[in-house]
Amino acid sequence: MSAVDLEQRNNRMVNPPAPSRSIYVALCGGVGGAKLVSGLARILPAESLVVAVNVGDDFEHLGLTICPDLDTVLYTLAGLVHPQQGWGRSDESWGVMDELRRLGAHTWFALGDRDIALHLLRSELLQGGLTLSAANAELARRLQLDVTVSPISDQPVRTMLDTDQGRLAFQEYFVHRRCEPAVRAVEFAGAKSASLAPAVLAALESKDLAGVIICPSNPYLSIGPMLAIPQLRQRLRALDAPVVAISPIVAGAAIKGPAAKMMCELGVQPAADVIAPLYEDFVDIVVLDTADAALATDARFAVVPTIMHTPEQKVALARDCISLIQALRAQRSR
Amino acid sequence: MSAVDLEQRNNRMVNPPAPSRSIYVALCGGVGGAKLVSGLARILPAESLVVAVNVGDDFEHLGLTICPDLDTVLYTLAGLVHPQQGWGRSDESWGVMDELRRLGAHTWFALGDRDIALHLLRSELLQGGLTLSAANAELARRLQLDVTVSPISDQPVRTMLDTDQGRLAFQEYFVHRRCEPAVRAVEFAGAKSASLAPAVLAALESKDLAGVIICPSNPYLSIGPMLAIPQLRQRLRALDAPVVAISPIVAGAAIKGPAAKMMCELGVQPAADVIAPLYEDFVDIVVLDTADAALATDARFAVVPTIMHTPEQKVALARDCISLIQALRAQRSR
Repeated sequence: MSAVDLEQRNNRMVNPPAPSRSIYVALCGGVGGAKLVSGLARILPAESLVVAVNVGDDFEHLGLTICPDLDTVLYTLAGLVHPQQGWGRSDESWGVMDELRRLGAHTWFALGDRDIALHLLRSELLQGGLTLSAANAELARRLQLDVTVSPISDQPVRTMLDTDQGRLAFQEYFVHRRCEPAVRAVEFAGAKSASLAPAVLAALESKDLAGVIICPSNPYLSIGPMLAIPQLRQRLRALDAPVVAISPIVAGAAIKGPAAKMMCELGVQPAADVIAPLYEDFVDIVVLDTADAALATDARFAVVPTIMHTPEQKVALARDCISLIQALRAQRSR
Repeated sequence: MSAVDLEQRNNRMVNPPAPSRSIYVALCGGVGGAKLVSGLARILPAESLVVAVNVGDDFEHLGLTICPDLDTVLYTLAGLVHPQQGWGRSDESWGVMDELRRLGAHTWFALGDRDIALHLLRSELLQGGLTLSAANAELARRLQLDVTVSPISDQPVRTMLDTDQGRLAFQEYFVHRRCEPAVRAVEFAGAKSASLAPAVLAALESKDLAGVIICPSNPYLSIGPMLAIPQLRQRLRALDAPVVAISPIVAGAAIKGPAAKMMCELGVQPAADVIAPLYEDFVDIVVLDTADAALATDARFAVVPTIMHTPEQKVALARDCISLIQALRAQRSR
């Protein structure tokens, strides 16, 4: 390792975990999850963080395999993400999209030129026979990331929505129809037969696993597709290491995306503690925002500021997660 | 048909063919061939022209199926081609390419943003199960072309070069290595088992076939891959309609591309009449440029100006081709 690399890694080790157990797995969707992951990447050494990313949003479009959540995590960690949107590339251009519009092609999914370059490279790697996780590792390497970012599975798991406008693929609902259809049920095609990607399975089975962090991502659309893989849920239930989940709902509203609207349509009151029953078979602590302190009715809940607008807020929430896990571990070892 | 469409079609009918026999098939490679095709498209009604295009240069790159000769013909006929290059798009931008370079991807094949839009659309159509000719017909429709432009075959025929630097795929030789390797032999993988695309076969079998024009394209790299399809050569040999070929060599040099260099390497003197023996089993007239009048040693040759810099020159050569065919047909019917 070069001196520069070493320095970068050392800079990251603001809060080094106990050397005997040092792997943290973060289960992550798109924008909200990526924010926490960027905080975790700042305080953990690269070899201590494994980010397992939702693939339920993946789809084929214009001949490309597009993995929106993986892209958001990669772009965020590489410092390339569009700062206001939280997804896509900063400093983007739209030459291809303009021409696709002229050609009468589908243009409801925004594809910037820089973004397309990554999609082309991933599609070429996949067509060359790489698994999705191997292709993604190669993309991460080219973006000069040393954190492990893996799809939750190398098999396709596709989120399908049963709505008042019929059965819709996720992007058809989310982007093309702007979440307007009312959702009646959510289904994850392929999940039952999918298995965990090698890096995720190795981390969850490692004797060095310190804990699992469920990022503040939509429980139905981002975490749900992952938990629908039987191997993951079984593995989480059987873990010795603690599991901490951060609620994506603050004061009755989703920070981003359609979570709260969907909850209403599914007959669930949108409240921060709604994730507790969803994850109850494996979660040790559910983290609520200070705005929702009144919902922390028992010891299963922790309350910290969870809004992440600034880098400092991302690092602070990441530190809280690590601290909670360390405290749970200390308690268990007594 | 709307009044506007009708007017456009009427404008094209400067030199209408005899109504009883009115289909002309043009066998065409890239830049040189596309120039003559654009002349033919100006003087023939759309339904009278079938352009059969070389697919030997096609390749997979960055997950896209790229068909350089088809693209050149489409862009030329649509008035979108880069005027100086003769291939690629005018008014092109390079956002994707710049990012691919940053990602360390292969950038030896220039892919402009507008060009990529077409490749994406074609790749999506192909992945959706369309044949290459059906996908191409859809692209032509979106470019508002009414001339039939078809790949010679829906099966892959790939030009491979045996060179002093080993066996190379066409684009590897032509673009990546800039035609620098010395060519020892040319081979067309897949040609033996390929069949003619439906539109090409229908035109060649039509009772309305007036004649076949072999465009001034490289005989080894553009026309050769097509003639290597046994069905085409058999069909050309059996034709009642005349076949006229325009030499791409003028005064011992190729107007564009590596034809003359390749001839030297293959032990052939680069001369305008070199195509005569290559096509002798089916060609009726070989057209030489006025600069090569001395090579027109017998009645198999016609001599006209073949250089096509201006639209007028393209139309003039197109008219010469139609006239030669009409004269041959008149002679035969006597």
